[in-house]
Amino acid sequence: MNSDKISHHISEQFNKELQDVRNKVLVMGGLVEHQLALAITAFTSGNVEIADQVIRRDSEVDVLEMTIDRECSEIIARRQPTAFDLRLLIAVIKIVREIERAGDKAVRIAQMAIRVSGVDGQYNHQYELEHMADLIKEMVHLSLDAFARLNIDEVTGITGRDANVNREYENILRRLITRMMEDPRNMARVLDVIWVARALERVGDYACNICEHLVYIVNGLDVRHLSHEEMQERIAGNSTDDVSRIRS
Amino acid sequence: MNSDKISHHISEQFNKELQDVRNKVLVMGGLVEHQLALAITAFTSGNVEIADQVIRRDSEVDVLEMTIDRECSEIIARRQPTAFDLRLLIAVIKIVREIERAGDKAVRIAQMAIRVSGVDGQYNHQYELEHMADLIKEMVHLSLDAFARLNIDEVTGITGRDANVNREYENILRRLITRMMEDPRNMARVLDVIWVARALERVGDYACNICEHLVYIVNGLDVRHLSHEEMQERIAGNSTDDVSRIRS
Repeated sequence: MNSDKISHHISEQFNKELQDVRNKVLVMGGLVEHQLALAITAFTSGNVEIADQVIRRDSEVDVLEMTIDRECSEIIARRQPTAFDLRLLIAVIKIVREIERAGDKAVRIAQMAIRVSGVDGQYNHQYELEHMADLIKEMVHLSLDAFARLNIDEVTGITGRDANVNREYENILRRLITRMMEDPRNMARVLDVIWVARALERVGDYACNICEHLVYIVNGLDVRHLSHEEMQERIAGNSTDDVSRIRS
Repeated sequence: MNSDKISHHISEQFNKELQDVRNKVLVMGGLVEHQLALAITAFTSGNVEIADQVIRRDSEVDVLEMTIDRECSEIIARRQPTAFDLRLLIAVIKIVREIERAGDKAVRIAQMAIRVSGVDGQYNHQYELEHMADLIKEMVHLSLDAFARLNIDEVTGITGRDANVNREYENILRRLITRMMEDPRNMARVLDVIWVARALERVGDYACNICEHLVYIVNGLDVRHLSHEEMQERIAGNSTDDVSRIRS
């Protein structure tokens, strides 16, 4: 075997490893999307069994996070990648953290579902969250989809939705505070709904963070801490680089 | 110059780079400790000027995060470190993220301070937070100090405090909900105090996360997602490795 063949073999093996890491991120992302959807259903319907299921499956999310994280470190140590490959591996370490945090919020929502279900069923404010939950589920899905394709074309379209989420969150908060003032006896229960709205709002932030890490992978730009407009400009001013090799 | 000297020179230069990264983390940590203390003062005293100052300085925290993050990636690409050095660099990328999140909470608390100060001053519930704020400031300080010394002896002592924080948070929540029920007109204002308590509780989690990343640096163990007891056992069962070289 000549050295060309060996290096070709090594690079093929290396590409496989990177592809494997990316696939695991998508599995983890899919699981957390599922967890979020179930947690929201459990909360809005008061179904304790579904909530229990979300709590039980959280350890799978944790294991995936730790596995992917370890694999990235091992690949960095063994392959000593640079440029796009190194950016991918470092960003994946950050992305799995965001996904794991979203998974944690699913668990918190499931725990709230169990708590709320134990209270007298006279009041139901959970439906207040439905629109916001739809916005969040979509943001998470789109950000993971963009990562799957390593494509940043839609990124500012996704992060731009965060303003809608924040507006919706403020609306929910205003409505629920009014409810609490009208009937303070029901306060603890309404507060739980507010907590869940807050948790969902945070998940929207995690989806935005995933998008920012994706921009770093694709064109090496750090677009954190920018306004929506600054981010759009920064991305527009840059062409993507060696992404074609791995995007397939 | 013989190759021994060159490699000695390279390794000395490399150590300097690692030391420089660590120092920057400590500068960033010190800044965020300061931001948190000021934000809490602004909130409990209603001092808007201090709150403004916290908000203005947040960009310094962001710049430090991005600088350290970039330097770590560059060192990994250029030096191709393994073992302890690689763990340090990867963990630092994670640690600056935790510190930055704590800095974000300081800004949120400062924003709340401004909002609360604008409301009629008839009620003051901010003092409710004083004990919790002290607990949190101490946890953040101790976790950064442990990182400064790359010493994990105190780590479970720090993370063990989180249970106290959570208990204190639940106490505050109960007291404030009672207040709101007694006087619903004051609700929005009390809710702001609850938000701040919640933000502080999260900062305690970030301090614990820093400790977990530190364990990974020092002995290569991933102690995330463990109970306090499991973490104690896991750390006790492991001796530290090549930490002496860089600890000084």
